[in-house]
Amino acid sequence: MCQLLGMNCNTPTDIVFSFEGFRRRAGLTDCHSDGFGIAFFEGKGIRVFRDNRPGHSSPIADCIKQYNIKSLNVVAHIRKATQGDVNIENTHPFIRELWGENWVFAHNGNLTSLPDMTESIFQPIGSTDSETAFCYMLSQLKSRFAKKPNEQDIFAAIQEITKELTQRGTFNFILSNGKWMIAHCSTNLHYLTRKAPFGKAQRIDDDNVIDFRDYAKETDKVTIITTFPLTKDEHWNKMMSGGFVMFKDSDKVAEILGVESEIIDDGTLGVQTFA
Amino acid sequence: MCQLLGMNCNTPTDIVFSFEGFRRRAGLTDCHSDGFGIAFFEGKGIRVFRDNRPGHSSPIADCIKQYNIKSLNVVAHIRKATQGDVNIENTHPFIRELWGENWVFAHNGNLTSLPDMTESIFQPIGSTDSETAFCYMLSQLKSRFAKKPNEQDIFAAIQEITKELTQRGTFNFILSNGKWMIAHCSTNLHYLTRKAPFGKAQRIDDDNVIDFRDYAKETDKVTIITTFPLTKDEHWNKMMSGGFVMFKDSDKVAEILGVESEIIDDGTLGVQTFA
Repeated sequence: MCQLLGMNCNTPTDIVFSFEGFRRRAGLTDCHSDGFGIAFFEGKGIRVFRDNRPGHSSPIADCIKQYNIKSLNVVAHIRKATQGDVNIENTHPFIRELWGENWVFAHNGNLTSLPDMTESIFQPIGSTDSETAFCYMLSQLKSRFAKKPNEQDIFAAIQEITKELTQRGTFNFILSNGKWMIAHCSTNLHYLTRKAPFGKAQRIDDDNVIDFRDYAKETDKVTIITTFPLTKDEHWNKMMSGGFVMFKDSDKVAEILGVESEIIDDGTLGVQTFA
Repeated sequence: MCQLLGMNCNTPTDIVFSFEGFRRRAGLTDCHSDGFGIAFFEGKGIRVFRDNRPGHSSPIADCIKQYNIKSLNVVAHIRKATQGDVNIENTHPFIRELWGENWVFAHNGNLTSLPDMTESIFQPIGSTDSETAFCYMLSQLKSRFAKKPNEQDIFAAIQEITKELTQRGTFNFILSNGKWMIAHCSTNLHYLTRKAPFGKAQRIDDDNVIDFRDYAKETDKVTIITTFPLTKDEHWNKMMSGGFVMFKDSDKVAEILGVESEIIDDGTLGVQTFA
């Protein structure tokens, strides 16, 4: 299995505080040391850093810390390999162009069977279930919509495709096109939104403390989505199985609540809202 | 305009000696300071680094120098913007997945008109002529070949598509799928192959000297393709207008010679060889 980290903001924000805790789980406080990757949207473009070395000690990860990149949308992943060798082509997040946009995807889980990809528009490059599932999702979207539809239609279609893929195994994911961020929970995913009044937070993985008042403006809003909470003294919303969230400018614009149980077998996906 | 750098080898090789000279042209010895990018193939995967800061002073470029990445195929670009703003989405090299492979492309030149992309399978994300031309090329290839054809067919198809695109302007490019590297010259492109017996070379841009005997094994072969020669004391092959080369494991496996003139108007593309 792996761990996921996503950030969606209303102002370009530095993810270093969260990423520095997160990457300790890649070999120090946890065992997700089979490579890491992080993609920062900058406009429609992406800066992406990958390494097959453990995130906690990778020089590439050190470089990210020094560079202080600010972004509206970030997707990161630390890997504990289940399917596929430990190499760069199997390192999340995966990226494809869809409708003239970069789409970025990271997965935590394990799909024990995969759809037939013979005729798929998008083809996996590596050998992970994750990249195959992402390519399947994008191919389905492109087949359904020759041109980019509105966000409600995208959200609804992703739910349908996800419902199909979750029949094949555990499928926690974070997905972003640089405007919005969608997350789906099969087993473990948590989120919070930091906004005024800002306070302090202490990282779980090394006790480091930050006072967001030293960095944030009154109007700033930052949503963090991650497998397990990164701080001790903040309220993290635990997503339920089958739950979806869609964030834009750090606001939750759509949600499917999911169910307490980890197994969805009644075909329902909870209550949908779209703001 | 811009400058291009490509490397194709028979053993994973560190590009730092070439890249350190090349990136001085991004603000010190030349004016190509509107961002840089470099993609290193590692197996079927890619490590890519981009910055919209000048390559000569970018902390990302400093990180590359320290990290000592070894690769069989590298494509790099320093930009002097002609079309499109200076931002990450307009930073070469551009990358797309075709037939389950990463294809990496960098362009030097200026296309004064562009093909209609409305129905194109691949869509540009940024606003450069270069990315549009790349997407057009890939869409044409995918339309002609649903499955990956052999390398001769790829080389021939790229010639045809390039011939069409060169009607629209200057189109020097380097393209790689991680196995082979194809380069096309409209105006300026040079290459050399370093192999035993190895000797010394001195960089043009800062007079730094390397003795390849300190690094290379007897069987190593390294081909460098670049806009203008990077060293003083090596023989660089100047490509002619309309010329194509295809390298694999550092060997030239196919070539179109092109013509001395910078204008091709007789519909011929010189003599083709395929080894």
